[in-house]
Amino acid sequence: MNAIITIGREFGSGGRELARRLSEELGFAYYDQEILKEIAERTQLSESYVRAIVERSPVTSYPIHVVRSFHPAVSPVMDQTNKVCQEQTTIIKELAEKSDCIIVGRCADYILRDYKPLRIFVYSGMAEKIARCRQKSEDTKDLSDKELEKQIKNIDKNRKKYYDFYTGQEWGDKRNYDLMINTSNISIKVAAHEIAVMIKEFRKNID
Amino acid sequence: MNAIITIGREFGSGGRELARRLSEELGFAYYDQEILKEIAERTQLSESYVRAIVERSPVTSYPIHVVRSFHPAVSPVMDQTNKVCQEQTTIIKELAEKSDCIIVGRCADYILRDYKPLRIFVYSGMAEKIARCRQKSEDTKDLSDKELEKQIKNIDKNRKKYYDFYTGQEWGDKRNYDLMINTSNISIKVAAHEIAVMIKEFRKNID
Repeated sequence: MNAIITIGREFGSGGRELARRLSEELGFAYYDQEILKEIAERTQLSESYVRAIVERSPVTSYPIHVVRSFHPAVSPVMDQTNKVCQEQTTIIKELAEKSDCIIVGRCADYILRDYKPLRIFVYSGMAEKIARCRQKSEDTKDLSDKELEKQIKNIDKNRKKYYDFYTGQEWGDKRNYDLMINTSNISIKVAAHEIAVMIKEFRKNID
Repeated sequence: MNAIITIGREFGSGGRELARRLSEELGFAYYDQEILKEIAERTQLSESYVRAIVERSPVTSYPIHVVRSFHPAVSPVMDQTNKVCQEQTTIIKELAEKSDCIIVGRCADYILRDYKPLRIFVYSGMAEKIARCRQKSEDTKDLSDKELEKQIKNIDKNRKKYYDFYTGQEWGDKRNYDLMINTSNISIKVAAHEIAVMIKEFRKNID
């Protein structure tokens, strides 16, 4: 079975940086936005519409953990939403079958639970999130800290809503993860290196 | 400043094993039950009484985070409880001043917050906790899994009550820790080694 790492993350806490660094350290494939592109291509829907569905509107579709046959589609919008979510599940499973990989977000920890992934959750304090956002994006220049904080909280609220709805689990709750890293005080670079060593160590024991 | 590691842990999840292994890897002093002994000696109270106070009965004493001058002692029992808790704080701070160290439990993450400790929390699934308890203690032989589960939950309920009361924070909540490790799926031996390397790495960067 391929080695899978899933990374859940609060917005602005450096989850993608951790994924990138782990990918470099381990030589694993790393997927994030690529999944959205692939869904858009397969469903013939626009990428922005797909993004809206998988990041913002869980309430109009079905949770993964509910048996679908009891919930027939009642509208074209729900049907489309459902199709996008099913496609996402299919693609994520295909990626897991293809090679060792790292998947950021997208309920991958839940979708791939049978693959026994290493489930990481990355979080940090608000001050550090704000600093990271300002460092990464010029667009934040015109926003006050308060406005930026509101945006960050809103994104995480949607992530939580989406994850909780589709998985029936709680986003960010320690029970659903193997390792949780507070990047306020732990260097992502150092953490990535150590996790990589840990994974190599595990594999050595398995092989 | 000395390097401090604090380890909060759910009962049966291997927090003490992690502390022992980290202590071996890093050559740091490691404190757990020793603190109780020291409090007993200094307060001239029995160790079991001290244990009852610091592990089971927060409701009769004052939280650390409340300014004490507004809360004069009103009974000898409360006074004694307060003395034990103050002594614990004093001892933990003395240990942190003495050398690099690892402290298990005892709200040390909160007491030593000005020392910027690496705050670890160790947890695991109930099945693994039960297995660990059975492996570690002969006394569990006469208990059913259900009875053992009840005991484990009860101990953690008290730990949570004590921690929440004294610190004004939430026990086991990720915001209060830097690293959270689910020992259901992560080997304590491997984790200890990697954390040790991580700490050495940090210190190298500081020195």
